[in-house]
Formats: sequence, C-alpha cells, structure tokens
Amino acid sequence: MIVVMKAGSQDKEIDVVMDRLHALGLQGHLSKGVERTVIGVVGVTSAMPDLRERLELVPGVSEVVPISKPFKLSSREFEPEKTVIDIGGVRIGGQELVVIAGPCAAETRDQVMSTARTVKAAGASILRGGAFKPSTSPYSFRGLGEEGLKLLAEAKQENGMPLITEVLTPQDVDLVVKYADILQVGARNMQNFILLDEVGQARKPVMLKRGLSATIQEWLLAAEYILAQGNRQLILCERGIRTYETYTRNTMDISAIPVVHKETHLPIIADPSHATGKWDLVMPMALASVAAGADGLMIEVHPTPDTALKDGAQSLTFDHFGELMKRVAPVAQAVGRTMAGSKQKKA
Amino acid sequence: MIVVMKAGSQDKEIDVVMDRLHALGLQGHLSKGVERTVIGVVGVTSAMPDLRERLELVPGVSEVVPISKPFKLSSREFEPEKTVIDIGGVRIGGQELVVIAGPCAAETRDQVMSTARTVKAAGASILRGGAFKPSTSPYSFRGLGEEGLKLLAEAKQENGMPLITEVLTPQDVDLVVKYADILQVGARNMQNFILLDEVGQARKPVMLKRGLSATIQEWLLAAEYILAQGNRQLILCERGIRTYETYTRNTMDISAIPVVHKETHLPIIADPSHATGKWDLVMPMALASVAAGADGLMIEVHPTPDTALKDGAQSLTFDHFGELMKRVAPVAQAVGRTMAGSKQKKA
Amino acid sequence: MIVVMKAGSQDKEIDVVMDRLHALGLQGHLSKGVERTVIGVVGVTSAMPDLRERLELVPGVSEVVPISKPFKLSSREFEPEKTVIDIGGVRIGGQELVVIAGPCAAETRDQVMSTARTVKAAGASILRGGAFKPSTSPYSFRGLGEEGLKLLAEAKQENGMPLITEVLTPQDVDLVVKYADILQVGARNMQNFILLDEVGQARKPVMLKRGLSATIQEWLLAAEYILAQGNRQLILCERGIRTYETYTRNTMDISAIPVVHKETHLPIIADPSHATGKWDLVMPMALASVAAGADGLMIEVHPTPDTALKDGAQSLTFDHFGELMKRVAPVAQAVGRTMAGSKQKKA
Amino acid sequence: MIVVMKAGSQDKEIDVVMDRLHALGLQGHLSKGVERTVIGVVGVTSAMPDLRERLELVPGVSEVVPISKPFKLSSREFEPEKTVIDIGGVRIGGQELVVIAGPCAAETRDQVMSTARTVKAAGASILRGGAFKPSTSPYSFRGLGEEGLKLLAEAKQENGMPLITEVLTPQDVDLVVKYADILQVGARNMQNFILLDEVGQARKPVMLKRGLSATIQEWLLAAEYILAQGNRQLILCERGIRTYETYTRNTMDISAIPVVHKETHLPIIADPSHATGKWDLVMPMALASVAAGADGLMIEVHPTPDTALKDGAQSLTFDHFGELMKRVAPVAQAVGRTMAGSKQKKA
Repeated sequence: MIVVMKAGSQDKEIDVVMDRLHALGLQGHLSKGVERTVIGVVGVTSAMPDLRERLELVPGVSEVVPISKPFKLSSREFEPEKTVIDIGGVRIGGQELVVIAGPCAAETRDQVMSTARTVKAAGASILRGGAFKPSTSPYSFRGLGEEGLKLLAEAKQENGMPLITEVLTPQDVDLVVKYADILQVGARNMQNFILLDEVGQARKPVMLKRGLSATIQEWLLAAEYILAQGNRQLILCERGIRTYETYTRNTMDISAIPVVHKETHLPIIADPSHATGKWDLVMPMALASVAAGADGLMIEVHPTPDTALKDGAQSLTFDHFGELMKRVAPVAQAVGRTMAGSKQKKA
Repeated sequence: MIVVMKAGSQDKEIDVVMDRLHALGLQGHLSKGVERTVIGVVGVTSAMPDLRERLELVPGVSEVVPISKPFKLSSREFEPEKTVIDIGGVRIGGQELVVIAGPCAAETRDQVMSTARTVKAAGASILRGGAFKPSTSPYSFRGLGEEGLKLLAEAKQENGMPLITEVLTPQDVDLVVKYADILQVGARNMQNFILLDEVGQARKPVMLKRGLSATIQEWLLAAEYILAQGNRQLILCERGIRTYETYTRNTMDISAIPVVHKETHLPIIADPSHATGKWDLVMPMALASVAAGADGLMIEVHPTPDTALKDGAQSLTFDHFGELMKRVAPVAQAVGRTMAGSKQKKA
Repeated sequence: MIVVMKAGSQDKEIDVVMDRLHALGLQGHLSKGVERTVIGVVGVTSAMPDLRERLELVPGVSEVVPISKPFKLSSREFEPEKTVIDIGGVRIGGQELVVIAGPCAAETRDQVMSTARTVKAAGASILRGGAFKPSTSPYSFRGLGEEGLKLLAEAKQENGMPLITEVLTPQDVDLVVKYADILQVGARNMQNFILLDEVGQARKPVMLKRGLSATIQEWLLAAEYILAQGNRQLILCERGIRTYETYTRNTMDISAIPVVHKETHLPIIADPSHATGKWDLVMPMALASVAAGADGLMIEVHPTPDTALKDGAQSLTFDHFGELMKRVAPVAQAVGRTMAGSKQKKA
Repeated sequence: MIVVMKAGSQDKEIDVVMDRLHALGLQGHLSKGVERTVIGVVGVTSAMPDLRERLELVPGVSEVVPISKPFKLSSREFEPEKTVIDIGGVRIGGQELVVIAGPCAAETRDQVMSTARTVKAAGASILRGGAFKPSTSPYSFRGLGEEGLKLLAEAKQENGMPLITEVLTPQDVDLVVKYADILQVGARNMQNFILLDEVGQARKPVMLKRGLSATIQEWLLAAEYILAQGNRQLILCERGIRTYETYTRNTMDISAIPVVHKETHLPIIADPSHATGKWDLVMPMALASVAAGADGLMIEVHPTPDTALKDGAQSLTFDHFGELMKRVAPVAQAVGRTMAGSKQKKA
C-alpha cells in the first residue's frame, strides 16, 4: 500500500500517518519527492480491508493506493495450479468440457424425467433443475420445493447424472445437501453473505454465479467467503451482467472467462441461457464461451418451452439441444478440449 | 395485454393463440389490419406474470405488449392516498421531513451513545446503526451482532428516538424485531425473496433499500413481496445505483424520488451517505433530495470518521452533521415542509 | 507517478525502467521494500498521457499509478477562483441563478416568438433553441438550419436575451457564431475533438454538455481541449447519463454538480429536460439541481408540446414553466442565491 | 403502432386521437375492451419517428406502442440476403473469415512497413492503421495526418492489401478517400450525423463502429444514415461497450454478433483489441468472436508495444499475432469458415 501525501503537506501530517501505521504494526517508508511525499507501507494483510479509506481521511493525505489484490484464496498466487473438481467421476476444470443441462424449474415428473433422459442421451454430464426459484414478482411460480428436489433426485438416479440445484436461503442448505451434488448460489444471492458462510461449511461442491452487477473483483471476494470457510470445491459461473442494452436480458461478459483463468485457479462455467434470455442466441453464445476457454456450459432445456412455468423464452427444445451438442463438439476440439459426455458414452 | 402477430401470420397460428387464451380463461379480441393482426387480451391478472414470454414463443407471434403495471399493492391506482407511517410519534410520509442519523455500525458504547446524543440534539428524529453488517470482503468488520443491538437499544432509550437497524437473514428477524422499531432490508438483499417474505410477516415497519442495479420496477416488485404478506408499513430508500462512473461510489438517482411519489403511495427516504461514498458530497446531495421531495434523509455520523471500522469515508463528523441540519431546514421550508425534529424539540 | 514492480522483480528489470525514465528526462526514485520495489517518478507532465500504459508493458512492472490529475486548465489547482462568465450582462457562475429557456428546436416564427416572450416574462435570462438538431433516426426532423438561426436571432433581439444554440460540426462554427452568444456542444459531440478544437478557437462562450456515457474525468478532458485552444469562457452542463434504468430517458447525475465545483473553477448548468425525458419530472429535478449548487438551469418550453416536432414529451407548457419559476425561487434563496431574471426585471 | 387509452378515458379524448391520426393521413382502428380502449394505427412510416411521443402527450392516452422497427434499410425484412462486400478481391460477409490487422496509429515508416509485411505474411487480408486519432486528452498523440496516410498507402501498395483507416470529421472525407479502401467511422463518432451523411455520399465502403454506449438499435439507426445516402457498402464493427466493470477497458458484447446477423443483412467485424484494452485478452476474445459468427477480426499489432505512441497495452507483438492466426484457423473451420488470407496465399 502506498500513501500519497498532498502537494505541500506538513511534516506533522506525515508524522500522524507514520504513527497510525506504527499503531497497526505496519512499517512506513518515507520518500520525499520534489512536489510530494510518498509513504510505502509494508506489512498490510487482508485482515485490514478498510485501512485504505481510513488513511485517506487523515489530513494531508491525497490518496492511498493498494498494491495487492484483496482476494487471496482464489488467486493464482496462492494456488498456481488449476483446481479440478471431481463430481461422481465428472471432472470440472480439467481438459474435458462439461455440459450441465436440464429444465429451469422442476414442474412435473414427466417434464423432469423426459428432459433428463434427453440431455443425457445428447451428451450432457450433469443434470440441472430448480426446486426453489427466485422470482422478481411475488405472483410468479416459485418452485415446487422439496417435492421438486425429489423429482430431480429420481431423474439423477435413473440417468446416473450428478445434480446441481439452487439453494436460496441458509435454512435450506441442509435439505438441499441431501439431494444435490452441487449447490448453486444464484446471481441475486452472490452477496448474501450469510448464505455464503453456510455453503462454505457444507461438504458439497458449490457453484457461485456472478451477481447481476458484480465486478469480477466483488465476485472473487464473494468466492473468498466460501473458500475461507474451508470449502475449496468451488466453481464460478458467468451468466451475464446488467448493462444499458435491452435487446438481450443481460450482456454476457465473455471476457470474464479468460480473466478468471488468469487471476484464479477456479473452474468457470458459462450460462448462455440466462445471459441472453433468448433461445436463439444460446447456441452462438455457447460456442463463443467454449472458444474463450469455459470449462463447461449450463443450458436450460424444456420439452415445450412455450408452456414452461419459468424462463421458457430462453429454454431450448430437445431438438435444439441436440443440435447445440453437435455444434459445440468441433469448437471444443478446436481449442484442445474433448467433450466430457462423449467420453463417458464410450466407457 | 396485446398480442401482435407477425406480418403474414397464418389463420391457424392466430387460432393457436386464441385457444391458448381461452384455456387460461382469457378473452381475445381480434383486429386484423392491412399488414398485421393484433389481438387484445382481456382478463389478465397479476397471477400470470410469465404469460407474456410464453405467448411470444407461439409460432406467428411477433411481440406481446403488457399494458398494465406488474406491481399492484404499492401503486397509486390501488391506494391513491399517500401512506404515512407513525413510528412512536415520528410520522414518515407526511408534511414533516424526518432525519434518520447515527453511525454506520455500532462499534463501542461510547461511540454509540455520543453519536445518538449529538444527532438528537441537532434535530434528528430516528437513530440508525448497524449490528449485522454486509461486507464485500470476508476479512472486513461484520458487526457486533446482538451486543451491537443492545448498545443501540440503550441509546434509543436514553434519547427517546425510534431505532432502525438492518436485518441480514431470515433467522435474525425475530431477534432484530425485539430491539428495532424499523427493520432495514439492505440493497444487497433487495431480491432476497425469503427475507422479504419474513419481514412481510413481521409486525414492524420495514425500510426497503433499492438494489445496487435494480430498476424502479424491480424495486416496486420487491416491495410487493412485503406488502403481499400483509405488512403495509413500508418505506422505500434510494441509496444510489451502479453506473460506469467511478468518482462516486454509486450514482444517486434523485429522479427515483419523484417517480416513487408518482407511481406509488409509499414514503421515500434518501441516503446520500451510501449514494456518494464521500462525506463532502453528502451535504449537497441531502439538499437535492429534499428539494426533489424526499420524505426524509438517512445520514451516517461518526465521532472520528478516520478511525471508523466501517464506511468512515462517507461519515459526517458531529460538526458537519450540525451544519447539515442547519442548511437542510431552509430548503425543506422552500418546498413546503417542516423539520420533524425541530417540532419535537419545541414540544 | 509511481511504478510498482512485481514481487520478485529482477534488478535488470528495474534498470530498464530507470533507463526508460531517464530517456524521457524523468527522474526515478527507488524504494526497495521487503516484498516489492517501488519507483517514484518525478517530472511527469500532461504532455505524456500514455506514459502509464507504456511503462506497464515493461517486463517486471506490476502496475503504474498516476498521482496527478490528467486535466489541468479546468482544475481548482490551476485556478482556485471560480470563473464567472458575463454574457451581455447575464453572469453565469456568480451568486445569481441563471435560467436558460426556450424551445428544443425552432419550428415556426410564431412558436419561437411566443416562447421567447413567455420565458422572458417569467424570468428566464437566456434564450435557447436549436436550428441544427442531432437526431437518432435519419428520418426525424433535423432542424431548420440557418432559417432557424434567423428566427432565434429575431426573438433574441426583441426580448433582449442572449441566445444559446447548438453547433453540430466544425464547418458550421462560423455561421453559428454570427447569431449565437453561446455555442452549445451537445452530448453526442462531447468527444468530437475536431469540433472542440474549433469552438476553442471561436471568440464566443461555449457550453459543453456531458456525453451520454462520459465519466466526469473524460468530460473535464474534453473541456481541456477547448481551454487549451485559448477559449476560457467555458460552461459545463449536466444532462443525464446512460444507465440500465429505463423509466427515465437518462439518469441525471446530480452529484456531478458538487463534484464539478470541487474539482474545477468552471460554472455548471443543469438540464433536467434532457436528463429525464419526461415533463412531469422536470420540476423536481430542477429544484434538486438548484439545491445541489447548479449555477443555472436549462429548460425546454413549447406552446403545444403534443405537436412539437422534437422532444415534446420533455417540454413544459407556458403555464408549467411559469409555475417552475415560482417554485425555483425559494429554493434558490434557501441556498443563498438570487434569481438572475428577477433582478433584471427590477432594472 | 398501437395507442392504448387510459382506463376510463373519455369518448372525446378518443376523438382527439382519431382526429390527429386522420390529419396525418393515418387510419385508426378502434377496439373497446372492458377496461380500456385500444386504437390500432395503420399507415405509419419511418418518416414519422416522433409520432409516438407526441401521441403520448394527448390527454387520455396511456401508452403508445410501436410495432415495427425504426430501422429499415439494414433490416432482414428489407433485404433477406446477406450483403457481401468485395474490396479488391477480399470478400467481407461471405464464407471466408477476414482478418484486418496493423498498427493502432502510423508512427514511423519502419513501424508501418514492418507491421504490414508481418501481418500479411501471417495471413491478414486487410491493413489497418490510423493517421487521424481521436484521443481523450488534448495532450496525447493525435496522429500524423496526411503523412500517416502516405505511409499506410505505401505499405498497402507493397503488400497488395486494401487499407482501412479512420476519418474523424466531414472535411477530411475527400482526403481519406484518396488513400483508403474502407473508411472507418469510430465509436466516438457513431452519432456524428454530419459525418455519417458525408461518408454515406462517398463511393467507398464504410465500417461503422458501435458507439461506447450505443444500443444495438441506435447503432442500426446510425447505419441507416449511411444507407439512406445511397452507400450500401456498409460493415458494422463491435468493439465493446461501457459498463460498470473496470477490469477490462470495455465489455465486449459478443451477443451483438448473432443479433446483427438476425436483424440485418450487414457483415460484422469484431475488434477485441479495443474491446478489452489488454493484449492478453485479445486471443480468447478473438476466438469467441469467430465462434459466435463474426465475419472478420480487426487486430492491433505493433513491433514494440511498450514504446507505442498509442494503445500499446492492447497491441500484439508480431509473435503473438502469428500465434493468434494459428489458433483462429481451427475455430473458424469448426464453425464452417475458411480463412480469407490462407486462400489468397495459395493463389
């Protein structure tokens, strides 16, 4: 951390800064320039996150510049090697591209079972489906609850696919852990810190979606909550951010994929269904995500999207999902990946 | 709701739409133009929130246009008269301007007590202070918990001021209700729907902050969650939104104040401390909020901002808060309001 | 400027940086910490704007941190005293609040003359009106051109009001200078640098609107273009920025008003008509702007907004403008200002 | 266009709307529902772009809903077949992927010549380079002007590559036309309507970059300006939009690529250099753009990025560009494209 004093700052103002640093067990290295004095601070740890703004209030201080990143446990510096998470034999973060697919929400037994069979046959490795749904309006469908979890668990069993499903609130973590193989924390809950603490203590892998208007740094700090509780089985998921553009539901920030690979050791999944909100944009954005280095895709599929209780507009039909899988494979290969599902099928 | 068919849509496509509407108990009124057919839909209720996107997936449909607003209970159409909420004699939403002030977070007994006395003496009517703090980094101060609530309750008692404090998670609602007069739902929790349900069932007034990147409509739909549970003592709070500008922490959307008055009957408070993140912008933005019609202000105050454990950069000193109160009064008067605190003092 | 080396940077990498600095006539002050080496750079001028990103590409460099602001001539450090611009006796930037009003675009002689008379009578000091209009669609009304300038000049003459009008392109500067007292550079042209050069060479005051998605810093750098050409009669205008919110046309960044006052010596006008795009939000946002410290307001007025060729939705009727002037006056007074128009009327 | 009346609107209010429509030569079809009356309007053309907001001001009108798109000449409805533009044998918009590469700005003869030779050898088809540079600060390098054009023309000649270069202002169009094969309109000029008119009259292909905060619709309306002047040789270019995220310079909206293909017949190029502002993100975003269906890439290359006068941080070295070309080819093939450059080399 560097403390930049104002032009013409007084010696006694500098002394106040040095005293503050000393009181916190930090060392300050003075460097008096022609115009300004600069103090290099040694010993700052991540346990002093508000130090910057407090020092900026000291009279005579112009600016305080942090020089280390605020996230630690997710960083490449902490763990240079990429994390691979094994979920019942499906490895996320390795050389294989993993496809997660299924309905937005579990609605009926038929819908869940037929969708699971179809996506499995087409090459998906992990089943997705919601039982607890966040919904902008209180008058919308909010999911079937535990009944939905049971339907999803049955489909998981029948098809030998691990299940990912969302947990909305700390009280439900124990319940969801019973049925799910991966706990999903949704975009609206990315800064629900109590929930992050709770899933950080669960002994199940977690997928953390990026918040609607979260910076990459805030997202990695949210990840830090989970990692700091001891749960290192963490997967990130880019699902679009809020911008001024209204043509798509969100703007998918594909660049977040290489940035996450550069800054962290965590695997990252792309969710083009939520990112675009339009089924006919899911295919090109899935291909783009894979080309940019995503470790996997999460795709919403529904037998009859126009009667779906939730997010029909962004769900693929069975046919469209089959076509997507066919077109994803060569792009995955072009960037040096194999399809997780296809290898499984051979086995 | 209006269904616009594509140019050249087929009769049988129109029939499918009409059948769908019929199955849902709705009436469709056909209007065939030269280029396009348009179907006016009668009977839509707020219990069909996803109808629009489902109809848009029917072949031949170009667009579905909603013509009613998705929020009901907060709307002026539902309740033309403005809601006034009485909290121990302090009335929010009436002719008086209410000032809520106090520390960002309770840190020590001294800090809480001295701040409460000071803001009371300067004319504030309601005490604010946090015991459970959301924090971007897991390594930051997260509040004193129930110990903090006790300190705040003591200050409330001593100064005869109602207390507002944040509740972070559904499990804590019962605890916070014991100490607080108003439950605050923070920006990051605006779409924590389980928490909204829970405070909607509490018998205490609630203040709902606008989410970091929430549209006004999404904010009013979040309000609808609380209202729909039967809690009509609801106050809104504008606290800045996320934009590309980095000079301020957020961009305060002052226009949300008159929009809320136009669209809803709910009172609205302005929080210039969080909206700007800089103490020297708090004063002008407080004055602007009052001029634009805010029913009150919420201001962070700290005896020594440069040693605050949280949000020091945006906290006013005691002196600056005193000056703010002096300068707010004439602006309030200029827009036809009196200061709630000053009347109390006279009494 | 401070160059932060990576942890573990080599001595020869440091040497490369020092050599680069030396070649540019700059001095580098080394400060070796336990973890990192930091180099303080002395002698950087605003003529080296890309120095930062070039140094960041040198191997071993982690980050380069600028410590001075990139704008100079507009800054309070360059000119501590606030600039007051006198336009035919109307002083912008002083103690008086100046109201600029008139039609969005000149359409007919009647419309221009009746509007000018009305706004003058209600207390406006400066006439606004467009002859060259930027328009999102090529099929929209684009202004009357020189014919419009003549109508506006006639209204200016008759009412003794200085005229502000927009200039769209460098070739038109000479023409517009003949008729206008203030040249307006619109939001879409804020980074039309050739136009900025050109109005910087004109001997007329200029009003520079903030770009649709310009940061405050970019806005001040655009101002720097005009100031650097020698034209110091510069007024800034906040007119709303683009955000994700769609209820209003733009989001008015009222906080830009105190920020401009803090960082620069330039006067600032608020344009609530363009900022909101809705006539019924113009009044509260005008009051808020004045309370926040704006030096003036710019308001669109039209005899019959529902037949206006441009921006009718945000234009006030004559009656509404009269009411606005009545309600602005007490707020101006509450923040220590008098109305420019009212003083003139007395004279 | 559909006019939705307010609940409880009066017959005489409806008459006013019908009269207005009649006066404009439009037909109104009344449809009285239980709650509301809706008027379908027939005959609206793109020459009435402000009709919507004017009708919305008529008393009794609740909302006016447009049902056709405001852009015509770029739309798939106007021209179902995709436009292919032939530039000296290089075809943009066809089955081949076209790579445009070169320096951000022409600086020296050596730099231009060596870069052109290198990118040609690596498989680029078109040379890019700026002689007139827009720059946020007036103190930055603004290009070599005509001298730069001459250097670029020499490199074009020597390597048999068409040249694309930016034109900043209407006066320069004639000059730039003499040297360039494609005129580039930059992001900051996307709504410089006078410049759009001017390049619309030039007999040279134009590449129109998306504005920093332009919606896709505004971009297509800017394209409409050029098309409406009779110039149908138009190429669009996605180069990132402004969002709240600061890690990258802009956020690249990859979804704009399939949206442009769906809505228009125009070719689209992706510019990952400006979109990210960081050279190490250029490769993954280039791959993503190709996978999403871009007709080409535009890439900045510099012999020594750390001494570049402009945009060094986002420029590739010769080696990195060579590697990019090698890795783009298999992704292009995976989505059914061949590399334009490689075919040329065979010839």
